[in-house]
Amino acid sequence: MNEILMSLKNRKSVRLFEDRPVEPEVKEAILQGAMEAPTAGAMMLYTILDITDQTLKDRLAITCDHQPFIAKAPLVLIFLADYQRWVDAFTVANCQPRKPGEGDLLLAYADALIAAQNSVVAAESLGVGSCYIGDILENAEEVSSFLDLPPYVLPAAMVVYGYPQESQKLRKKPARFSAQYIVQENRYRKLTPEEHLAMHGQRHAAGGYPPKDVQADLQAFCLRKYHSAFAREMNRSAKVYLTPFLTEDQP
Amino acid sequence: MNEILMSLKNRKSVRLFEDRPVEPEVKEAILQGAMEAPTAGAMMLYTILDITDQTLKDRLAITCDHQPFIAKAPLVLIFLADYQRWVDAFTVANCQPRKPGEGDLLLAYADALIAAQNSVVAAESLGVGSCYIGDILENAEEVSSFLDLPPYVLPAAMVVYGYPQESQKLRKKPARFSAQYIVQENRYRKLTPEEHLAMHGQRHAAGGYPPKDVQADLQAFCLRKYHSAFAREMNRSAKVYLTPFLTEDQP
Repeated sequence: MNEILMSLKNRKSVRLFEDRPVEPEVKEAILQGAMEAPTAGAMMLYTILDITDQTLKDRLAITCDHQPFIAKAPLVLIFLADYQRWVDAFTVANCQPRKPGEGDLLLAYADALIAAQNSVVAAESLGVGSCYIGDILENAEEVSSFLDLPPYVLPAAMVVYGYPQESQKLRKKPARFSAQYIVQENRYRKLTPEEHLAMHGQRHAAGGYPPKDVQADLQAFCLRKYHSAFAREMNRSAKVYLTPFLTEDQP
Repeated sequence: MNEILMSLKNRKSVRLFEDRPVEPEVKEAILQGAMEAPTAGAMMLYTILDITDQTLKDRLAITCDHQPFIAKAPLVLIFLADYQRWVDAFTVANCQPRKPGEGDLLLAYADALIAAQNSVVAAESLGVGSCYIGDILENAEEVSSFLDLPPYVLPAAMVVYGYPQESQKLRKKPARFSAQYIVQENRYRKLTPEEHLAMHGQRHAAGGYPPKDVQADLQAFCLRKYHSAFAREMNRSAKVYLTPFLTEDQP
């Protein structure tokens, strides 16, 4: 296994950081790694917000489902899917651009995430830990307001970075589901009930835990996550972000 | 610059591949790299389709805006954003799952892309070139039909891989926009008309091309890409994929 594959394998989320900054040249390398990422038509359909203002970090820690470690992260980047910049550029060039639609949105969203993951890989190579904050999708109105987001801009990812505390280095990476359930050949096939239970049982065992009732475990997880207030808020909020991109049906 | 940063910097899209397969152990490493990627709540909200059937590759080459090189790619992976598997697992566990919504969709979409980009990084480390095919978003009805996609599954990315032909290795990586236009501090700021023109002029110059009329260039690009039939089809088709996730407004 080469050094790059090793790095991908070993990378795990880090939420507790040493109390020291990410040096400017390290931050620069992380940003550069992001911007070297593949991008649709070389359009770079994203803007990266570098959150340096502690007041903003504090607010993000609250709007992102109350996670105080966000406020303590030395480096916080928000990868915005951004079609506004292109619409504006086309307007400057007198192209009478149409309104961006659902496909434009998904393409920009993809571009932003591809860049975000490159930043994570770059950070890891420099000993800098990172964690995606999915909850950045929540509270669209408030977040848009304090980040000044125009209509065709939405957060695709927020990533926090820093040098990992010792405890984080020792933490075990959560086991992945077995490839047999994740990779399929040629066509999508729904798993059988037995496969669902086996898939979860197997991962549980791979994590080194003693056997437990997979069904009860799934129920608890569903209640804690999928039926949670934050998941409902995320859906409500995501809809707010999507709405400007939703086109009318063609007559 | 370490080996990983170098690899991110040097990676560029490859569309013409040598006529030899990607070896099973190399494919395995690429898939493993993908599955080691960060994932929301360790849920792995994606399924990876490994397209080995030449008939399917041929059809994808057509549905993805008629790009014959797709049919010749030794390895074709489709990263599906997949909430169906979790809804099904929750159903098996008698959790009465709600319908996935907009936030669930975006989270799954993100998960799939983060995994896709890890696969691209893994491939690059093994000398395997790759190219994202954004056009996988087109022709939702036909693609869903021949890939057997259920309602809560949609393609987030298609990536083709193979050993690059010599001409591809020599090709220059397209210049990126300068960081001063892509990275902003704390809050989003719309660029001024002058900045838009400077941004495009600067990239053009960075590509080593003689100066030209940036405004005319933007107009041509807008017509060729943004006002194209494939961009309109992508919007129409993406809407078909999004529709099952769009929730009713709460009463």
